[in-house]
Amino acid sequence: MKKKSPSSRKQADQLCRWLRLFYTKGWVTGTGGGICTAMGPETVLMAPTGVHKEEVTPSDLFVVRRRDGTVLRPARNRSLAVSECNPIFCTVMNLRGAGSVMHSHALSAVLAADLAGPRDFLIIDELEMLKGIRGVSNQAKHAVPVIPNTARERELTDQVRRVLEVPAGAESFCILVRNHGAYIWGDDLWETKRHAEIYHFLFEAVNARQDRLRGSREG
Amino acid sequence: MKKKSPSSRKQADQLCRWLRLFYTKGWVTGTGGGICTAMGPETVLMAPTGVHKEEVTPSDLFVVRRRDGTVLRPARNRSLAVSECNPIFCTVMNLRGAGSVMHSHALSAVLAADLAGPRDFLIIDELEMLKGIRGVSNQAKHAVPVIPNTARERELTDQVRRVLEVPAGAESFCILVRNHGAYIWGDDLWETKRHAEIYHFLFEAVNARQDRLRGSREG
Amino acid sequence: MKKKSPSSRKQADQLCRWLRLFYTKGWVTGTGGGICTAMGPETVLMAPTGVHKEEVTPSDLFVVRRRDGTVLRPARNRSLAVSECNPIFCTVMNLRGAGSVMHSHALSAVLAADLAGPRDFLIIDELEMLKGIRGVSNQAKHAVPVIPNTARERELTDQVRRVLEVPAGAESFCILVRNHGAYIWGDDLWETKRHAEIYHFLFEAVNARQDRLRGSREG
Amino acid sequence: MKKKSPSSRKQADQLCRWLRLFYTKGWVTGTGGGICTAMGPETVLMAPTGVHKEEVTPSDLFVVRRRDGTVLRPARNRSLAVSECNPIFCTVMNLRGAGSVMHSHALSAVLAADLAGPRDFLIIDELEMLKGIRGVSNQAKHAVPVIPNTARERELTDQVRRVLEVPAGAESFCILVRNHGAYIWGDDLWETKRHAEIYHFLFEAVNARQDRLRGSREG
Repeated sequence: MKKKSPSSRKQADQLCRWLRLFYTKGWVTGTGGGICTAMGPETVLMAPTGVHKEEVTPSDLFVVRRRDGTVLRPARNRSLAVSECNPIFCTVMNLRGAGSVMHSHALSAVLAADLAGPRDFLIIDELEMLKGIRGVSNQAKHAVPVIPNTARERELTDQVRRVLEVPAGAESFCILVRNHGAYIWGDDLWETKRHAEIYHFLFEAVNARQDRLRGSREG
Repeated sequence: MKKKSPSSRKQADQLCRWLRLFYTKGWVTGTGGGICTAMGPETVLMAPTGVHKEEVTPSDLFVVRRRDGTVLRPARNRSLAVSECNPIFCTVMNLRGAGSVMHSHALSAVLAADLAGPRDFLIIDELEMLKGIRGVSNQAKHAVPVIPNTARERELTDQVRRVLEVPAGAESFCILVRNHGAYIWGDDLWETKRHAEIYHFLFEAVNARQDRLRGSREG
Repeated sequence: MKKKSPSSRKQADQLCRWLRLFYTKGWVTGTGGGICTAMGPETVLMAPTGVHKEEVTPSDLFVVRRRDGTVLRPARNRSLAVSECNPIFCTVMNLRGAGSVMHSHALSAVLAADLAGPRDFLIIDELEMLKGIRGVSNQAKHAVPVIPNTARERELTDQVRRVLEVPAGAESFCILVRNHGAYIWGDDLWETKRHAEIYHFLFEAVNARQDRLRGSREG
Repeated sequence: MKKKSPSSRKQADQLCRWLRLFYTKGWVTGTGGGICTAMGPETVLMAPTGVHKEEVTPSDLFVVRRRDGTVLRPARNRSLAVSECNPIFCTVMNLRGAGSVMHSHALSAVLAADLAGPRDFLIIDELEMLKGIRGVSNQAKHAVPVIPNTARERELTDQVRRVLEVPAGAESFCILVRNHGAYIWGDDLWETKRHAEIYHFLFEAVNARQDRLRGSREG
């Protein structure tokens, strides 16, 4: 394996910086959540599993093969294992051409998934912030896929693969997982951060509007 | 164009500092929102569009002509474009004599606009914090104009111009945009920051009081 | 006037540090709120009015006479005026022997005052955090005086004086002002900070419990 | 007593760092809350009582005997007293083999305890974050013991001891105390931090879901 280029060092720093940012936002608390970013067409830089995400440094990161998630270079700290999200991250990258994927354990995502009830999609509309999603207008009825949770994160992979093939959610850069959180992606670390901020805003907005509506239904 | 004076450098630093502050408050997340400030009677310093606002540095700022928004000096980084809010910012400055305008994508602003229902104004009263708005007392029934959202930010300009000519909202330093957010202005960056903090507090207050009222209407 | 002793310099630094802390908590936004602390039996160090409180530095502080609020030493920055709270702060210090008083514009205080309805006291009980108030046990039914707001902060002084003479609220280190906020005090800057954290926690607790109760009253 | 080893210095720094972190999260405000960690099989490093927890430094910490809480080395600052939680902390360490225990005064914990009503346990289920608790799956119906509050923190010890012997709560690393907060523990400072983040997330989740349910019961 060739030596790390300066640019991959920069990406590693940026990835760790995003983890610290996401922690302050409550998206990756309790060692939950994660993130990855492509280093090129074939390799992906990925956070470890089961660690306090805001403490992750570049030497804790793994390099995996984008095609199938095989670990090409383990973290320098050999006690670490690669993110449980590895197969899901690679699936999203391969099926959607994403350059970076993050996984959020935010409460707002869990509550937004609750709103979908038994439906397979959460429809979000009437919000300017929809324009922050690549290709989406503020006039859209934006359909975000919602899938059930499973006992282990790896077992979600099949569901993720299936839902990414459904045309109805083709405009979404996000999949909600009931009782769990969300996967959100973009072209690179920066777009993924923008999409993550947008989707979490949208979750909070639909939650607040729905709760207000329910409180006033009798009024 | 003459070289930047030390004082314009100071203004550029302050403008970027406010963007970082506004980001921590959730007003300009997901690359949304913006800000500008007058550099003199004819020129305005303005943030770029579509970038992560908390990352903006002085070299990312544009200088535009206050009268019509023409870009007089682009950002040093030539890949940037000037804020989509440019025509709205200039309209507010020209019609109200504002020295600085900010644009917020806060959820509290969206929810406060919801409260206005079909009315053209949100009335805010019974709050000491009204005194934080220049010329307003805590006995006021303060009328904040509320306008509908449009497909593109530039198309809002006509509505902003029209609403600024309605006498009813003449005391307001804020326009709420449904499903979108708010424009808030002041004499300079400092008053705009004070007004932004005041109006967002007022939005949160009317939201909380209305939600409590609805919850108890049946009680 | 004698030169500032090192200890008064330390108090000035601490006072400014508390303003920055209170700003992050949303208690002194939009230039609202304030704080003072005794420098000895006769003099009081006090923040200025109408400025962004998180930006206040020691040279912005005033020294006033505790007995009657007369300004003994103005701020070095001569454009500043002493806090509007001056007469209220001195009244609380003189009638209660407080060594430091803070004024909060927190939304949680406004909403807690709303809960009192037409009553002159908000009763808080069933909370361990009551023990954080000097002399109060977690078994107490703690009575916090609630007074109406007035057009100007100085006009509140009479009401504050009157309510401090009512025995019912004698255990309280806080007065709630309707539609406005709260005055909270203690022996020194440290106790005032502790009391401020405790009372704001209590406000949030009674608000949350009351809102939950109302939501479920019909259930 | 032997000199502090470098590793105990590192633990003291980490303990103080956690107190600052917990303060920013609202778990130890107003001098409330606390934390301890084992330095070996027989000794425990413990925070003092009644101080602003985010200001605690290593020289403010006590060393106590794990078996019975006897103070083996007082804080260098002789005006300090050891945490009121001392007997509870030691009880949890001895009965559960915990290596570190924290005490939270978070409002979310108080409101979650409210949800249990007269029952002795709060059941938490249908949340991925349950997996963040050692040995617990996301399919679990996780039972968290709930005990009544008492006039003094030391008097809680008997209740804590009794509830730790009830098999129903054997999977829990947390005890909720009504009107008060929670005790949360783990193998070391890191697991205790992870468990604290997980449990506070779970409290917020059950609170939000219950409040939504109540709001809609009539719908």
